[in-house]
Amino acid sequence: MTKTQKRDGLLAGQVDMTHGGGGKATSDLIETLFYKHLSNPVLDQGHDAAVFDAPPGRLVMSTDAHVISPLFFPGGDIGSLSVHGTLNDIAMAGAKPLSLTASFILEEGFPLADLERIVISMAEAAQAAGVPVVSGDTKVVEKGKGDGVFITTTGIGVVSEAVEISPRAAVPGQAVLVSGPIGNHGVAILSKRENLEFETEIVSDSAALHTMVTDMVKAVPGIAVLRDPTRGGLATALNEIAHASAVGIELFEEDLPVDPDVEAACEILGLDPLYVANEGKLICICNAGDAETLLGIMHAHPSGRQAAVIGTVIGDPDHMVVMQTAFGGSRVVDWLSGEQLPRIC
Amino acid sequence: MTKTQKRDGLLAGQVDMTHGGGGKATSDLIETLFYKHLSNPVLDQGHDAAVFDAPPGRLVMSTDAHVISPLFFPGGDIGSLSVHGTLNDIAMAGAKPLSLTASFILEEGFPLADLERIVISMAEAAQAAGVPVVSGDTKVVEKGKGDGVFITTTGIGVVSEAVEISPRAAVPGQAVLVSGPIGNHGVAILSKRENLEFETEIVSDSAALHTMVTDMVKAVPGIAVLRDPTRGGLATALNEIAHASAVGIELFEEDLPVDPDVEAACEILGLDPLYVANEGKLICICNAGDAETLLGIMHAHPSGRQAAVIGTVIGDPDHMVVMQTAFGGSRVVDWLSGEQLPRIC
Repeated sequence: MTKTQKRDGLLAGQVDMTHGGGGKATSDLIETLFYKHLSNPVLDQGHDAAVFDAPPGRLVMSTDAHVISPLFFPGGDIGSLSVHGTLNDIAMAGAKPLSLTASFILEEGFPLADLERIVISMAEAAQAAGVPVVSGDTKVVEKGKGDGVFITTTGIGVVSEAVEISPRAAVPGQAVLVSGPIGNHGVAILSKRENLEFETEIVSDSAALHTMVTDMVKAVPGIAVLRDPTRGGLATALNEIAHASAVGIELFEEDLPVDPDVEAACEILGLDPLYVANEGKLICICNAGDAETLLGIMHAHPSGRQAAVIGTVIGDPDHMVVMQTAFGGSRVVDWLSGEQLPRIC
Repeated sequence: MTKTQKRDGLLAGQVDMTHGGGGKATSDLIETLFYKHLSNPVLDQGHDAAVFDAPPGRLVMSTDAHVISPLFFPGGDIGSLSVHGTLNDIAMAGAKPLSLTASFILEEGFPLADLERIVISMAEAAQAAGVPVVSGDTKVVEKGKGDGVFITTTGIGVVSEAVEISPRAAVPGQAVLVSGPIGNHGVAILSKRENLEFETEIVSDSAALHTMVTDMVKAVPGIAVLRDPTRGGLATALNEIAHASAVGIELFEEDLPVDPDVEAACEILGLDPLYVANEGKLICICNAGDAETLLGIMHAHPSGRQAAVIGTVIGDPDHMVVMQTAFGGSRVVDWLSGEQLPRIC
């Protein structure tokens, strides 16, 4: 088929309802856009379903819908984000990701060039991560019934029998680590959305963490908990862990890594970085004796250069997260209640 | 937590943005709605990702976004449809489905009671199919940026090494079978959408076909092609197969099963049943000598009572689908061009 191209080589035109009809237009879109950029031996089988070999081990499966607004932001776009988000969910079970699927819900009238940019970004993120997109789906809804592009990615991975990472596995005495400064993703999105400009552009931390996790799990198979503090931020993720493990968590504010720019932006925006979403960070809870080993591994990885021990698991019948403040006081770090930043991922 | 309930026991109230924020409201919705109805040992692990054992074999993975409108229709709703659709994609590779994930994109203001009906229907369909929903995700978009509920389901399954079913595997001389009358789903949706009433209510054929496929593959591991003719209908699915296998396909109109009610409705609506979506039918292409065996197996299954041989694979350098009409003529059955019925699945 011939498709009009823009001068920059991207597809011209807009998404229309025929692209979702399942006929020739759908088939053409899949060939000229999705197969073109995401090509790999499994996807190229042309099945509705992908067939591939898996190494032995238990399977891990996770899905994430991405509705981020705006679609393009400093440090990424919905394409790369939807790859990173699901790879990280797989990695948080201590697993090695094998394959991804991607389903697109497109709004009529969305520029095909923007869609192509998103698919290229998704392809690059998948390529960099070494995890292919093996199957997909495309639907179109009428103008005003969607919002540009929504993408659901689903991943599967394998985890060795020796690994038993679970949000329920934290016990008192263990150390709480975070892989780097918090709040960058949420502040980057909000700044872009509100057209705020700071001296230095704040960039999303969106990144795939599975290679770092592989190194961590290899060195310390007995890691208790891994969690990526996305929506709701570090505070909500820690409350979920405290609730699931029936423990308390004590944080030390002065050990919490926050970039000065992000801290300044949070003050202006009235945000608490503890509740702001991250897309390239992880929380690790491990036996106190393993903390130094894991910190060393994280510091040696590009995604963990600023990793730090930020707290301790404690016994607490109320399963609270409390923070010793820099001023010597103490405050409860509650769940996020309400919506701090809508459509952040 | 306590949530207001309506008199019928379903949740009261509406989806609001806090349900997508990742904080307490999201967590409460997951517990009172998704975990409540979809509970199974893997989902109940409470991971972002699900961990489970898999039997040996190659893995099959498929994803489908569901944007059907209306959400509730005769014979099902978006909840049951999203289970059936993905199970069928897995089955069409000759595989046994193991697990499903489900991601929900909810529009602010959508009634929680309707959402609960959908989740219950999804749970019942998964239960009936014997395939658990092991992980999920929920996002919320502002009113006017979505359309009630969109659901992406992703499935994985395993397929034995002996099975090599592929849309590229059809060869001249093989028989083309369909598992039952065509067009019911699309006509049911359109009738509901347009408030059309016929003497007998036309009901969607939405159904999970994996148990019938298991029986078929067990008896005839050498089945060449399986395909569910959804969007674009039988005509489009056959054209895709002809294109992928570089063959022609000859159909016999008088052998094509169409319910008289569906045929009458199609005439009124100006539709050709060949292009109307099905959600509980499959096309099977097999060696001519296996056709009777497979027909017998399909006739013995509730989803295949009206299965029929409808055509033959032929050599054709143009990869066309042609139909010998009931009147002794012959016509080309082309791809669906354009959008016959938007948002049919």
